Amino acid sequence: MTLLQDIYQKSLYTLSGHGVRQVEVLKEAFRHVPEDVTSDIYGEGQIIAAFEKKMATLLGKEKAVFFPSGTMAQQIALRIWSDKKQSKKIAYHPLCHLEIHEQDGPRILHQFDVTFVSEANRPVGYEDICHLDDSFAALLLELPQREIGGVVPPLSELQQMVNHCRKNNIKLHLDGARLLEVLPYYEKSAAEVSALFDSVYLSFYKGVGGIAGAILAGDESFIEEAKIWKRRFGGDLISLYPYIIPADYYYEKRKNKMKRYYEISRYFAERFNQINGLYTKPKVPQSNMFHLYFEQGIEEIEQLLKLVYEECGVGITASIQKKDNDYFAEISFGDAVTVIPETVIEKMFLTIKQNR
Amino acid sequence: MTLLQDIYQKSLYTLSGHGVRQVEVLKEAFRHVPEDVTSDIYGEGQIIAAFEKKMATLLGKEKAVFFPSGTMAQQIALRIWSDKKQSKKIAYHPLCHLEIHEQDGPRILHQFDVTFVSEANRPVGYEDICHLDDSFAALLLELPQREIGGVVPPLSELQQMVNHCRKNNIKLHLDGARLLEVLPYYEKSAAEVSALFDSVYLSFYKGVGGIAGAILAGDESFIEEAKIWKRRFGGDLISLYPYIIPADYYYEKRKNKMKRYYEISRYFAERFNQINGLYTKPKVPQSNMFHLYFEQGIEEIEQLLKLVYEECGVGITASIQKKDNDYFAEISFGDAVTVIPETVIEKMFLTIKQNR
Repeated sequence: MTLLQDIYQKSLYTLSGHGVRQVEVLKEAFRHVPEDVTSDIYGEGQIIAAFEKKMATLLGKEKAVFFPSGTMAQQIALRIWSDKKQSKKIAYHPLCHLEIHEQDGPRILHQFDVTFVSEANRPVGYEDICHLDDSFAALLLELPQREIGGVVPPLSELQQMVNHCRKNNIKLHLDGARLLEVLPYYEKSAAEVSALFDSVYLSFYKGVGGIAGAILAGDESFIEEAKIWKRRFGGDLISLYPYIIPADYYYEKRKNKMKRYYEISRYFAERFNQINGLYTKPKVPQSNMFHLYFEQGIEEIEQLLKLVYEECGVGITASIQKKDNDYFAEISFGDAVTVIPETVIEKMFLTIKQNR
Repeated sequence: MTLLQDIYQKSLYTLSGHGVRQVEVLKEAFRHVPEDVTSDIYGEGQIIAAFEKKMATLLGKEKAVFFPSGTMAQQIALRIWSDKKQSKKIAYHPLCHLEIHEQDGPRILHQFDVTFVSEANRPVGYEDICHLDDSFAALLLELPQREIGGVVPPLSELQQMVNHCRKNNIKLHLDGARLLEVLPYYEKSAAEVSALFDSVYLSFYKGVGGIAGAILAGDESFIEEAKIWKRRFGGDLISLYPYIIPADYYYEKRKNKMKRYYEISRYFAERFNQINGLYTKPKVPQSNMFHLYFEQGIEEIEQLLKLVYEECGVGITASIQKKDNDYFAEISFGDAVTVIPETVIEKMFLTIKQNR
């Protein structure tokens, strides 16, 4: 364990997330579920059917299917669109999840011919995709885009991209892992944003704070195919209720808190940006997250974070990442920040300011 | 829901399994787990590491890795052996899980060139595989083989097959979904049987009665590769503890009961075989399971099972399968049968006998 992981784990308070990922998360979700509720069986049964229907409605799609992971759901979505068009040509951002976290599964399992759109430090815009022609099967957009601090293109530009894809018969897939977290910025409903896409994936352990699991939504024939692929991938488990029940429980618990997380994110970014040598990307957050940059070397940053932990009991991050020659921490707000007393937060800002 | 599913679900007693698959199965496993036990995170952490180590030891292999499903674990095992030998040639029984329950994933995701060995009504023997030459990457054997009533080849013949594969550099993979259930018949330990194989898969929701999940075991480099593939497949969930904790709990609860299930299986088969028009395959069970054949038409069988339910409160099966022109039920013993009173069991046999 690194110094920062150690500090973060021992901290009385943490900035990001909803608290420690521990067995209590499961126990809380199941506390009021009767013992005799029947398991889903290989994708069938009341628990899974009801949740899939609820999520299809939320996303304004005909059908939805619950997956153990987003990795599986998204590769399958793209594979279906690829097979349908008999084209292996897929486009996505160079820092999308499929590219950097899936051990090259998209190429090795599906032989996708991937074209990158946009660049590492900005989201995908119309100019990046207007050259994609009818030979492409699908374009994946991630809203908000995690690896660049949770930013999105403006809605007007998103609409331009949609128009281009529709004209060229390119399917649009939404990596909406954190879709709920960006709705307060867009001032749109999940269904309104999803309506721009042919298929949508939603995660339940990010802003929602469940244990694991994902929803993939689309039209009926797409979802029927997705279920066949889910079986092929070994994702059609005999029982998925250990993830579905917490997904539903924490979705209900937090669905109306996304605006609060977003406002907290904007407040903290503003305060950090007032401190010399610190800045955030984006400067004004568009979701519950941002990247906090430190104009220092890694050792100085670690000493600063250690001091904040010792003086204030606050863990700012468990890891520092490097981009080009700059160091940053991903800060992603949930329930954890809401229990930090005002005085502790002020002391944290002061400690950082005085020790830069 | 079919008539038989309805009857089976409403029955006071059932012959197969460990009872109803409901939320209580999860609650029981977590009842004594402290709230502050930390989740595994993407394959790391105490919960998953300890269980993988325990299972590696049980199976006498260097390492093991926990998977959400056996479908995923087995495709990956064969893929690793295939890539290693740069050969797509794989051999397995025509009724193996990969062939009949995985929506052609082995061919579509891995382009395996599959050769069937043996026939639908008997296990794989030496004569079936002795023609496999050095061009084959792997042979999969399922012990015991579910679709033919849980039978296995004799150990001496198994050893002959092992010798052939080793001589021809063909990797041997064990579909040991129900391995624990056949050990009392073989009178061998899990490690002794596993020693014959290069890779082994074990399931936790069959005889063990957990919620879902699988272990894949082998040497260190094999397991390291399997972990990369697990990520590629979307099986490397942020938290697998909702399956691991029950897998461990029910493994401990039932590991020493496998002999009892096996003896019950032999007893019931003997009694069924004494009734005119009923017979089991195999005649003398080799594990906790057998197929119960009825020399009747489907409607007569359903009426008989309905009568047994009404008169005795016993559900014999939730589904009747057809093979060639014969109808059978898969009977697979666990804890459920152990709570049926002796008098009820006798009444069940009598009711069947008098109404044939």
